[in-house]
Amino acid sequence: MGGDHGPSVVLEGAELARIRFPETRFLLMGREAEIAPVLARLPKLAACSRIVHTDDVVLGSDKPSQALRRSRTSSMGMAIQAVKDGEAQAAMSAGNTGALMAMAKFVLRTHDGIDRPALVTMLPTARSESVMLDLGANTECSAENLVQFAVMGAAFARAVLGLDKPTVALLNVGVEDLKGTDDLKAAATRLREVDLPMNFVGFTEGDKIGAGDVDVIVTDGFTGNIALKTAEGTAKLITGLLRAAFEQSIWTKLGYLIARTGLRALRDHLDPNNHNGAVFLGLNGLVVKSHGSANAQGVAAAICLAYDLINDDIGRRIAHDLGNFRSAPAVSAEDV
Amino acid sequence: MGGDHGPSVVLEGAELARIRFPETRFLLMGREAEIAPVLARLPKLAACSRIVHTDDVVLGSDKPSQALRRSRTSSMGMAIQAVKDGEAQAAMSAGNTGALMAMAKFVLRTHDGIDRPALVTMLPTARSESVMLDLGANTECSAENLVQFAVMGAAFARAVLGLDKPTVALLNVGVEDLKGTDDLKAAATRLREVDLPMNFVGFTEGDKIGAGDVDVIVTDGFTGNIALKTAEGTAKLITGLLRAAFEQSIWTKLGYLIARTGLRALRDHLDPNNHNGAVFLGLNGLVVKSHGSANAQGVAAAICLAYDLINDDIGRRIAHDLGNFRSAPAVSAEDV
Repeated sequence: MGGDHGPSVVLEGAELARIRFPETRFLLMGREAEIAPVLARLPKLAACSRIVHTDDVVLGSDKPSQALRRSRTSSMGMAIQAVKDGEAQAAMSAGNTGALMAMAKFVLRTHDGIDRPALVTMLPTARSESVMLDLGANTECSAENLVQFAVMGAAFARAVLGLDKPTVALLNVGVEDLKGTDDLKAAATRLREVDLPMNFVGFTEGDKIGAGDVDVIVTDGFTGNIALKTAEGTAKLITGLLRAAFEQSIWTKLGYLIARTGLRALRDHLDPNNHNGAVFLGLNGLVVKSHGSANAQGVAAAICLAYDLINDDIGRRIAHDLGNFRSAPAVSAEDV
Repeated sequence: MGGDHGPSVVLEGAELARIRFPETRFLLMGREAEIAPVLARLPKLAACSRIVHTDDVVLGSDKPSQALRRSRTSSMGMAIQAVKDGEAQAAMSAGNTGALMAMAKFVLRTHDGIDRPALVTMLPTARSESVMLDLGANTECSAENLVQFAVMGAAFARAVLGLDKPTVALLNVGVEDLKGTDDLKAAATRLREVDLPMNFVGFTEGDKIGAGDVDVIVTDGFTGNIALKTAEGTAKLITGLLRAAFEQSIWTKLGYLIARTGLRALRDHLDPNNHNGAVFLGLNGLVVKSHGSANAQGVAAAICLAYDLINDDIGRRIAHDLGNFRSAPAVSAEDV
């Protein structure tokens, strides 16, 4: 029921995801009267879907605290509940992010060994895509939180980007060991100590995000939120200026027409729909957030992201890596 | 002596600044043997300049602590010293930022009423330019620091952007009152209380920076550094993709040729040289940092920025506004 366009775009996205992964089955939580007519136009999707009716819909304007009370009655809450009950392997929503995060945490609880869940997504870079977390689930983070985010981010990159040993860095104001807060320095020390399926490269800086120098960028939710939004705002500024530049005269319009096949690749690479889907990592169950403004391709990308994470059994991977992590200091002590 | 290109570009920049503000006079600190030959080619600049020779030059690789010991012997230190001694009204350097910041703070000391200096610069936006601070002078900031940054940033915007009552906002992860850290909330409360020549609009988010919604964006040095560099990295990513897009085929190259007058305006607006110059605000004297990679136009922009700030007597403005600020609560208590 969520997102700027409601059920129609979500269902068209589900149809695209079904074409890619035909074994997928869908539980569609929400108002049957709004869902059924759209589904009727998509018979193949209808054949692998079941509508679970509820009238209660979380609105974009609802506060997380208001939504929490409706975690059994609202379409968003029921989707998360289905994951908890084992009826679904992942929940996907294009609705209210704060409400989704609060309900997911409340209903699914955090993994053993994870103190706080983190919001993770993929960003376009000059090389391909990078993973960044936390994007706003936690305003302030301890060194231990950052270490756990690194483990989760690496597991995510392995599943989604298909990398054996992703490079991981902590976002900082400089790359020298002495830079940054005490928590950042402590997290770096801890990440250097242990042997995990990642290549920890130390600190990275804001201007390296777009370059794609590292696969996984780890930061607290305050900084991550501001970095992500600043990147979005800068991209919007430049593409806006570019549009204005091409509309200046008949010549610039003609130049655009002639060059447009080349520009299409640029637009596709930056299109948020092609990188859509943020995931709450660190919970006992998978919840994926689609951007509210996503189109059908964007919704499909978010669903396929969930599929990749299920397929890779990311929950078990994270638990395994954290286990390694906690046992590592003991092992090295025995070695002495 | 600083910057990627050394004295030649710095002096060419000084010449451009002299053409714009012919009453400017220059003290050129550094190696006479390197400066004199360049100056000989710029006779009008030579006529209003004096070389102050020193062999000691701070390198880009020097640590701030190493530079500090040379604050009387190095060209960078001597430029700052000249401001302290009243021989110069501002110092401009394209050298090592950390060293410049450390020496400026050590030699000039902070203003009365300012606990920490902040690094401020201008950014291109969809509307024109905005001011952002702190960009990395202070990794962690208290509410009181943020309040002082707001006062300094507003004074800077009045001087440089020519605004009577600039809009000022605190950078946060959301615009609602409940978002963000305790320090941010306390700073917002304090800024709402007092009457200053600024329009405090509360919180703003990363994606609003590029839109130019507010004139002055206030944040701690950690977040500001990462936001600024993320914006730079994103701009570099997109302009790189754009270049690649235009080089794809003979058609895209032709399109570029036809549209290039329109694209030039885009390039000019984003060119860092047109927004060059970061200032350490809150010291008893003016120190301007030029980007190391700046060209002559960039150096000229940094010098002209210093000129505008001197002209506007920014030190006195800040002292005056801070005075208002400290007396404000007493006034409102009397009113009751």
